[in-house]
Amino acid sequence: MTRTILTGDRPTGPLHLGHYVGSLQQRVALQREYATYVLIADLQALTDHFDAPEQVRANVLEVMLDYLAVGLDPAVATIVVQSQVPELAELTMYLLNLVSVARLQRNPTVKDEMRQKGFEADLPAGFLVYPVSQAADIAAFKADLVPVGSDQVPMIEQAVELVRRFNRTYPGASGPVLVEPEALLGPVSRLPGTNGEAKMSKSLGNVINLSDAADEVARKVRGMFTDPRHLRVEDPGTVEGNPVFAYLDAFDPDPAAVAALKARYRAGGLGDSVVKARLTEVLDTLLAPIRRRRAEWARDLGGVGRLLDEGTTRGRAVAAATLAEVRRAMRLYGS
Amino acid sequence: MTRTILTGDRPTGPLHLGHYVGSLQQRVALQREYATYVLIADLQALTDHFDAPEQVRANVLEVMLDYLAVGLDPAVATIVVQSQVPELAELTMYLLNLVSVARLQRNPTVKDEMRQKGFEADLPAGFLVYPVSQAADIAAFKADLVPVGSDQVPMIEQAVELVRRFNRTYPGASGPVLVEPEALLGPVSRLPGTNGEAKMSKSLGNVINLSDAADEVARKVRGMFTDPRHLRVEDPGTVEGNPVFAYLDAFDPDPAAVAALKARYRAGGLGDSVVKARLTEVLDTLLAPIRRRRAEWARDLGGVGRLLDEGTTRGRAVAAATLAEVRRAMRLYGS
Repeated sequence: MTRTILTGDRPTGPLHLGHYVGSLQQRVALQREYATYVLIADLQALTDHFDAPEQVRANVLEVMLDYLAVGLDPAVATIVVQSQVPELAELTMYLLNLVSVARLQRNPTVKDEMRQKGFEADLPAGFLVYPVSQAADIAAFKADLVPVGSDQVPMIEQAVELVRRFNRTYPGASGPVLVEPEALLGPVSRLPGTNGEAKMSKSLGNVINLSDAADEVARKVRGMFTDPRHLRVEDPGTVEGNPVFAYLDAFDPDPAAVAALKARYRAGGLGDSVVKARLTEVLDTLLAPIRRRRAEWARDLGGVGRLLDEGTTRGRAVAAATLAEVRRAMRLYGS
Repeated sequence: MTRTILTGDRPTGPLHLGHYVGSLQQRVALQREYATYVLIADLQALTDHFDAPEQVRANVLEVMLDYLAVGLDPAVATIVVQSQVPELAELTMYLLNLVSVARLQRNPTVKDEMRQKGFEADLPAGFLVYPVSQAADIAAFKADLVPVGSDQVPMIEQAVELVRRFNRTYPGASGPVLVEPEALLGPVSRLPGTNGEAKMSKSLGNVINLSDAADEVARKVRGMFTDPRHLRVEDPGTVEGNPVFAYLDAFDPDPAAVAALKARYRAGGLGDSVVKARLTEVLDTLLAPIRRRRAEWARDLGGVGRLLDEGTTRGRAVAAATLAEVRRAMRLYGS
């Protein structure tokens, strides 16, 4: 039986190289092997962008363009706008009764993100419960597999707990209604920001977007952090923690060439500008076809919107069917 | 313009005399003056009865029978099953982003109920957020007025805060979308339990149900707590805190007769059994027609179900119209 993947992104800005190595590449590779649902999570985006609804809305189509550009195929992958599937909010409300506030407060992913976003003092309730909302997304599509980074594993554990608790509390007439998901860990470790920070984000200004023009990419690569003690070309340089090499490791199709560059850099005598020129070339090779497909789709935004509507309609039907089973298992009036 | 009332009950058991004086009587009196929506709050019931779905489901129709029995008229009042209106869950999710966890934890009504239900250690998330769900119910029906007891005033304050925050964060194109509700405090103070405790509840076994048979009511009145120091008929008795007199105050249509009884009781020489006989008679006069109408409707449960479906359909259309405005104001994709 074909297994089902749920994945997605929050439409808070353009997708970048971090998204590409962390998930997009894998999604495209797997979309024909698995039943794939891709959620453009605009409601989840509102949990910490509630006061920027225009930005979230505008980015729904931008994210869809990024998807089409990297090769997600809406004929095989079902791409869904979260807010157009109210069944997800409904399931979230049902699951909220099955988890304690204390358990949500212990969620390591939520704790990390609270710190990052400065929410410690005044955490919005919507943010505390977003792991439940995410569990509802996963459960509504009956996903077996959820591709995540290692930092997101606690979210999947939370989803598994909720699914088990639901199935135990509301056993279906013909077996458990919800499916326990598994984390599918990506093959590549997390890409650092262009400034060397572990966290990439638009607000930190340390990302290369999939939609950046070639000269923008070249400019960003020129400005990348390297080894701060590598002042003169002849000095030995450090490769570890040097984001230029991390990017080459992630994107250069020729690992032998990268290994040779690393050896020369370590020995001294290789300037940053040479390594950066190589990276610019590698990224241009990767991004040129993505950029070209994006430009083609951008000329037909009506068509892009229709593809999104079709995916959303298909996805909503799946979620609605699950919710009908959920309501029957819960013995809700009229079910 | 006709003002709108939202009111309702959690279908966790039969409605009792406390519901009658606290709200049902007033609802019936006001149903022709106001646009009245009455919510049978089965989802809210699941926040602390999540493991008793059969009980909640069965009580939906029982509560509807109680409503019809006391004279709520489904031709004028719109009686709605909460779980059949998923728009309420949807609006709850939107409002959750507009309130902090700390604010919800400070809600005095939630704190009281947490203590009562022994939830302090392991509060379900659904219970913490139920004031938000209640605010969503009020807002979805654009209710101006919410009849509540004084202990529920903090819930209305919470709803007002959420409505203001929504209207400020998401101003509609043609003015605020949501309506600020007001608490409508009932005319009668809270009725004590038959055992003299302030809190009435089925689980405490200290309630007289609207559906209790006449002999059951007589038995419960005979067992009522009175003045524990009023041992012999000739002893002076205390009227304050004596639930038999509280019930007479609430239900006896002849206040002068009650005043005379109180004077004789205080002076000594009036036995509890005489006062209780009076109360039994008063309650029988009140409950006999309610009991009769209930029995009539109970012979046509199919018809009762259809009335409930009609009300729910009407109510859902109102909530759906509000949600369409909400989604436009929030600039959600596709709105």
